[in-house]
Amino acid sequence: MIGVFDSGLGGLTVVKKIFEYLPDYQVVYFGDTARTPYGGRGTETIKKYALEDLNILLKIGVKLVVVACNTVSAVAFDELIKKSPVPILEVVTPAVERAIKATKNKKIGILGTRATVNSGIYQRLIAEHDKSIKVFAQSAPLLVPFIEEGQLKSVELKRIIRKYLWSLKQQQIDTLILGCTHYPFVRNIIKLKIGKHVNIIDPSTEIVLKLKKMIEEDPGLAGKLTKGQNHKLYVSDISGNFGNLSKEWLKINLPIEEIKVNS
Amino acid sequence: MIGVFDSGLGGLTVVKKIFEYLPDYQVVYFGDTARTPYGGRGTETIKKYALEDLNILLKIGVKLVVVACNTVSAVAFDELIKKSPVPILEVVTPAVERAIKATKNKKIGILGTRATVNSGIYQRLIAEHDKSIKVFAQSAPLLVPFIEEGQLKSVELKRIIRKYLWSLKQQQIDTLILGCTHYPFVRNIIKLKIGKHVNIIDPSTEIVLKLKKMIEEDPGLAGKLTKGQNHKLYVSDISGNFGNLSKEWLKINLPIEEIKVNS
Repeated sequence: MIGVFDSGLGGLTVVKKIFEYLPDYQVVYFGDTARTPYGGRGTETIKKYALEDLNILLKIGVKLVVVACNTVSAVAFDELIKKSPVPILEVVTPAVERAIKATKNKKIGILGTRATVNSGIYQRLIAEHDKSIKVFAQSAPLLVPFIEEGQLKSVELKRIIRKYLWSLKQQQIDTLILGCTHYPFVRNIIKLKIGKHVNIIDPSTEIVLKLKKMIEEDPGLAGKLTKGQNHKLYVSDISGNFGNLSKEWLKINLPIEEIKVNS
Repeated sequence: MIGVFDSGLGGLTVVKKIFEYLPDYQVVYFGDTARTPYGGRGTETIKKYALEDLNILLKIGVKLVVVACNTVSAVAFDELIKKSPVPILEVVTPAVERAIKATKNKKIGILGTRATVNSGIYQRLIAEHDKSIKVFAQSAPLLVPFIEEGQLKSVELKRIIRKYLWSLKQQQIDTLILGCTHYPFVRNIIKLKIGKHVNIIDPSTEIVLKLKKMIEEDPGLAGKLTKGQNHKLYVSDISGNFGNLSKEWLKINLPIEEIKVNS
């Protein structure tokens, strides 16, 4: 089984891409809907929650973990990799690599949660590759609440997105990293507001392409991952919009079970 | 010490009223900022969090607890009252009593979180008093995220409030209960959008008036509550806007300490 986790329903964008690029493999998802959103919380809180999320997936028996949360990837991945007995992938690096290839004018924008932006991880990774690239990061704290509420078409959301993108647009970026796996849910609005000429980098696509390569190159790992269509979604709080949104987004009706977070 | 708790910073509206009506008493506040917001979560999750919040205040040594959270009052108060060794007050009943006295046309509106509205507690309590009163409840799931983000003056917030109040306005309510202790932070916008002729019932004021009466009528209880100005604020996650907003709202700079929720 491939295990995917996120602070809420954002990681479903990664699950969707796994179904697209690796359709044979069985996927288990855990969304920490009882404690979403993570992006405005402190580093220690995020680390604690992330370790619990990892342990939930390990108990279910996954043989590979995809951290489908930029906030966790940005501030807690070092801890996770130390504790995980199975291979584990984060979502930031593949997006950065793609953005560096995509930019022509060497101006990359990042839209992310406050924790992700403040961590400086995108800025750091891009600078490690190419110091001449200018990076403009903008935090977008209200996008996750809107998306978790399923308010994907509201006028207010459109206005807020325009506001968040304003300074990035002024800087004339030609490449924008969606630095949160929730954001592909509103990709069309983002595309409209930032302009059609800007490359949109979706971390869900990039991490799944990396995963595909990893599986193809490592038959040992591939052998450990169960194949089949018995996918299952777990959440820490089953109320709310998760059921509806997951069905709408994945276009299939997967079983959902509540699993309590216990610390 | 009087202990006050809330899912986040909303309960500061209650603290402010305690400072106004009971200025001699020492107050301790706990805001569960690591797990805010509660209002969209399931009943079992809210009960679990509420019991932990209560225990945090009891460990600090409070002799009376004010549940400054409508969501908790609506869905978890029965549990809390069973478990609490000290007197404990909820925020729903005093607001209901005031609203019943205030309405002339017997049409009361409730604005609350999804959990509060779905619990039906306001509707039930009002019907117990007077079956001829019509109650119109509207959930407002995005207000708490906006307020916790400190975005109190954004145009989008104003538009969202107008949208949430639309159906209540159509029903020609003459009294509106702010069914969440966060909402007094945006009372002026609510007043503007619903119309000046509508009575706004602020649960923070009502619960503190009830508390004042209780203390005045019970010298034994009053004797147990420490007097003094050594107020203190605790939060489960110290990052974010809590520091700034608490200073701005309470007009004093109180010490803030992080206290981990360990469930």
